[in-house]
Amino acid sequence: MSDWLVNTLGSDAPIRVGIDPFVHSASFAQALAKDLAARDHELVPLFGMENPVDMAWEGSALPRPGQPLAPIRLHPMEVAGKTTSDKVAEMREAMQDKGADALVVAMLDDVAWLYNIRGSDVEFNPVALSYAIVTMDTAILFMSEAKIPDDVRAELAAHKVEIRPYQNFIPYLQSLSQVGHKVWIDEERTNYAAAMAVDEENRVRGMNPVTLAKAIKNEAELNGMRAAHERDAAALIRFMSWMERTISDEGRTVTEVEVDEMLTGKFRKELDGFIEPSFPTIAGAGPNGAIIHYRADGPDCGIVGPGTILLLDSGGQYRDGTTDCTRTMVFGRDAEDLVPLEVRQTFTRVLQGNIRLDRSVFPEGTPGAVLDILAREELWRAGQDYAHGTGHGVGAALNVHEGPQSISPRFVNKQALLPGMVLSNEPGFYAPSMFGIRTENLLVVEQAEGLESKATGKKFLRFRKLTQVPICKALIVKEMLSPTEVEWLNTYHAQIFQRVSPLLDRTDREWLRVACEAL
Amino acid sequence: MSDWLVNTLGSDAPIRVGIDPFVHSASFAQALAKDLAARDHELVPLFGMENPVDMAWEGSALPRPGQPLAPIRLHPMEVAGKTTSDKVAEMREAMQDKGADALVVAMLDDVAWLYNIRGSDVEFNPVALSYAIVTMDTAILFMSEAKIPDDVRAELAAHKVEIRPYQNFIPYLQSLSQVGHKVWIDEERTNYAAAMAVDEENRVRGMNPVTLAKAIKNEAELNGMRAAHERDAAALIRFMSWMERTISDEGRTVTEVEVDEMLTGKFRKELDGFIEPSFPTIAGAGPNGAIIHYRADGPDCGIVGPGTILLLDSGGQYRDGTTDCTRTMVFGRDAEDLVPLEVRQTFTRVLQGNIRLDRSVFPEGTPGAVLDILAREELWRAGQDYAHGTGHGVGAALNVHEGPQSISPRFVNKQALLPGMVLSNEPGFYAPSMFGIRTENLLVVEQAEGLESKATGKKFLRFRKLTQVPICKALIVKEMLSPTEVEWLNTYHAQIFQRVSPLLDRTDREWLRVACEAL
Repeated sequence: MSDWLVNTLGSDAPIRVGIDPFVHSASFAQALAKDLAARDHELVPLFGMENPVDMAWEGSALPRPGQPLAPIRLHPMEVAGKTTSDKVAEMREAMQDKGADALVVAMLDDVAWLYNIRGSDVEFNPVALSYAIVTMDTAILFMSEAKIPDDVRAELAAHKVEIRPYQNFIPYLQSLSQVGHKVWIDEERTNYAAAMAVDEENRVRGMNPVTLAKAIKNEAELNGMRAAHERDAAALIRFMSWMERTISDEGRTVTEVEVDEMLTGKFRKELDGFIEPSFPTIAGAGPNGAIIHYRADGPDCGIVGPGTILLLDSGGQYRDGTTDCTRTMVFGRDAEDLVPLEVRQTFTRVLQGNIRLDRSVFPEGTPGAVLDILAREELWRAGQDYAHGTGHGVGAALNVHEGPQSISPRFVNKQALLPGMVLSNEPGFYAPSMFGIRTENLLVVEQAEGLESKATGKKFLRFRKLTQVPICKALIVKEMLSPTEVEWLNTYHAQIFQRVSPLLDRTDREWLRVACEAL
Repeated sequence: MSDWLVNTLGSDAPIRVGIDPFVHSASFAQALAKDLAARDHELVPLFGMENPVDMAWEGSALPRPGQPLAPIRLHPMEVAGKTTSDKVAEMREAMQDKGADALVVAMLDDVAWLYNIRGSDVEFNPVALSYAIVTMDTAILFMSEAKIPDDVRAELAAHKVEIRPYQNFIPYLQSLSQVGHKVWIDEERTNYAAAMAVDEENRVRGMNPVTLAKAIKNEAELNGMRAAHERDAAALIRFMSWMERTISDEGRTVTEVEVDEMLTGKFRKELDGFIEPSFPTIAGAGPNGAIIHYRADGPDCGIVGPGTILLLDSGGQYRDGTTDCTRTMVFGRDAEDLVPLEVRQTFTRVLQGNIRLDRSVFPEGTPGAVLDILAREELWRAGQDYAHGTGHGVGAALNVHEGPQSISPRFVNKQALLPGMVLSNEPGFYAPSMFGIRTENLLVVEQAEGLESKATGKKFLRFRKLTQVPICKALIVKEMLSPTEVEWLNTYHAQIFQRVSPLLDRTDREWLRVACEAL
C-alpha cells in the first residue's frame, strides 16, 4: 500500500497525506511516513484537527451510528484459569524486566483476556471497545460506564481494576509521558494516535506481554477448549447425519443457505454455552468451494445433492471455548463412485498434508514457518499448492484469529511455537470453477515427553488435536495412504467415537459409528 | 566475535583495534567498525601502515613463506561448457543492468570459473592466488606472471584477458574510483582493503554475478560432474569390496589411516583425471565417527573389524568434476547381527531424512532452508537431531564448498534453489563416544517437467542424484521404511549397478551386485 501510494503521488510536487491515526497501527503509519518523506511528501495524522470522514457524517442525512453499548460479562475463573490480579502481577514482572513503568494494551482481545471480561461489540468476536493501561500501582480499564453491569464492576473492583471513560485513554497516556514514565507500546498492536501520545524517548518497544501470555493457554482454558470442541463436534456430526438422511433417504437436495440454517440455527444453537458463530460460515457446494472466503447468499446459492463436494468451514463462540473446523464432504449412496478420481486424489493429498503436520515432532524454538512445508509436500509433488497460510493462532473463548504464532510459508513470523498455543492446521486446494478442498483441525502445542536431543540440548514439542469431527472416508483414495497414515486416521476416528458418541442420540450415533469405522 | 570483542574491551576508555583488511570481508569489517564505534572504540584497518604480523616475521629466525607460485592450467571447453569471452560478456550485461562500470572478483573460485583456469595454490581447492576486474572494455587477471604457462597465456589473450601483476590490484581499483567509475563490489565476498580502495559513493553493492553464474552449472559442467561421480563411485566401491574381503576373508582388521591410504592412495589415485582429495578424508571407526570433522592420525587411530561402524566422508578433485560422498558402513559376515539395534534404527532414520529431501518437489523460488526439516523429521520424532546444516553448494571441478545456496535450519540464507545448482544432502546423527552416522549424496536441482501450480502460477523443481555409491543394507531396519522408501532404495541401487559395474573387475562387480540387490 505504501508502494502504491508513493507511486501514485509521483514526485513532481510535495503532497500532504492525511490519515486517521486511530485506525492504523503505529508501525504501519511510521513506515508510511518514512516512505513518503523519502519522496518529499508528508504524512499528516489527523489528530486534534478536522477529519473529512467526521465532516461527511456531519453533512449526512443519516444519523451516525453511536459507539456500541452492549453490556460486557465476566469470563469466570473456571474457564479463565487465572485471576485478573495474577495476570496483572505477571505483566508487572514483565514490565520490570523490560524497564517500563506503564503498559498500553490496545488490542481488544488482549484487554478482554487481561481483565477476564467478554463483550459483544464486534460480531463473531467476544470483545468490547476498550483500552487498558497497567502501571506499577494501577490497572485501568478505559470503557464506557454504561457497558459495565454491577457484577462485573464488583469483580473488577475486587481485583483493583479502575474504570475510566473510554475517551480519557489518550489524555491519560499523555500525562504519563509528561511525567517521564517509560511506556511500553507494542507499535504493531497499538494505533498511531496512542503511540503519538507518548514522546519517542519515553516509548519502550516490543511485543505486548499480554499477547504472548494470552496465546499460551493454561489448563483451565484448555479444558474449556476441549469441552467446547466436543460439543461443537456433536453439532457438526448431527448436521452430517441429517445431510445424509436428507439426501440419501428423503432423496432431496439441500441449499448452501439451508446448510448454515441447520448447522448454526439448529444444531449449534441447541448446544450448551453457544453464543454465536466464530466467523461467517463458509458452505461452498461444488465450484463454490474453490472461492476461499465464499459466503452463500439468497436464492441463487449452490445446491448439495448426491456426489456434490461440500466445503464447510465453520466455528462457534462458546462460554468455554472457540472452535474452527473445516471438513470437505460428499453425501449420497455409493458417494465415492460419484466423485471424479482427481478430486479424491487431491482430497487425499490435502489429508496427507494435514496428517504430516499433525504428526510432526519438533525441537523447542521452532517457528511455525518451518513446519509449513509438511502440509504442502504431497501437493507439491503433484504440482498443486494453495495460496494461503497453513495455520493461525486461535483464542480460548476469544477471537478465532490471534497472534503471535502462525504456520506460514513466508518466513516473516519468527515466533517460536510454545506449549499451550492453539493453532489451526488447514491445508487445502482450490480448482477455480470446479471444486475446493480444505481439511482443518485445531491443535494444541504440548511437550513431547521423554525426548531431548543430546546434540542440541533441546526438548521437543508436538501437537494434540482439539477438533473431534470425522473425516469423509468416501473422498479418500486409500492406496495413496501409507500404513502410518491409515493408522493415524483409524486412531483419530476411534477417539472421536469414544468422546462424542455419548452426546448423540441413537440415529446420529449409528451414523458416527459407520463414519468412524476403520478404513 | 564482534560481541566478544566489544564485551572484552569494556567501555572505560576508547580503544583502537587494528585489523589486517586483506583477511576480513568488507561486510564483516564494516559491521565490526559500527559495533566498536557504538562504544566509542575505533577500528583501524592496517592499510599502508606497519602490521604487527609483518613485523614479527621480520624479527623471526625462520624465513617467511613466499606467495605460492604453482603453475595454473586451462579448464578446457569440453568441461567448462562456456568460453571466457562468453562469460565476460554475460557479466557485462549484469553490470549494465546494475549500473556498474567495473566488477571486482575477489573470490579465488570465482576468478577461476570466470577465466576457465585452475590452480593448485590451496590444498584441496583447484584455485590460484588472484583477483579479477571486468570493465566494459577490459577483463583483467591480477596474478604473478611466473604462474602462467604459455598455453594458458595464449588462451587468455585469445579471449582478450589482460594479465597484470597481483600487487597492482589495489592501485588499479583506486584509479577506477578516482575517475568516478561505479565499481560493483560484493562486500560479503571482497576483502575490506579492496572495498576501501573505492570511495563509498562509487561502490555498487550486491551479490557478485559471477558467484551465481558459477553456481548454476551448464550442461558440459553437469556432464563432467556425472562422469567424475561415476569414476569416483568405482573407487569407493572397489574400496568397500576390498574392506569386505580383508575383514571377512582374510580375517584381519583395518586401521583408519589404512582406510585413507587405500581409498585415496590406491583406488582414487588409479582413476582417470584424479588430482587430489576435495577435502581431508574423514574415516571414523566406532566412537570416532561421532567427531564431526575427525581426522585419523598416526598409530593411535581407530580400527575397523567385523561389526565396527565406519563413517567415511571423502571426495575427489578431478579434471572434470568434484565429488563429496559420505557412507556409514559395516563389514564382516552377518554384520547386521553385530550392530546394536539402536544404531541401525538411527541409521534408518538418517536414511529416511536423506530420502525425503531427495524425493522432494518444490515450487521455484523456494530457498534451501525451507527443505531442511525434511531431512530431520524422522530424527526429531525420536528426539534426535544433528548440529550442522543439511546441505552446501558444490563447485564443478572447483571448491567442494561454494555459495550462494545452502540447505540450513537457520533461515538466514534466502537464496532460491535454481536449476543447475549442485547441493549436498547430508543428514547425520552423532552419539558422543559411541557412534556417528551420516549419509551424503550430491544432488543437482532440475525442473520437474509438466508440473505447474494453477494457484500460484509457479513451476516446480526437484533433485537428481550425482552420487552413485550403494548404501549399506546391513544397517537398515527394513520394517521402519515405507514401501515408497524401499522402492527408492531399490531403484537407486539398480541405477548404480547399471552405471558403475562396467568400470569394475569381476570380483568388485560381484560385490556390487550383492550390495545392489533389492532390499
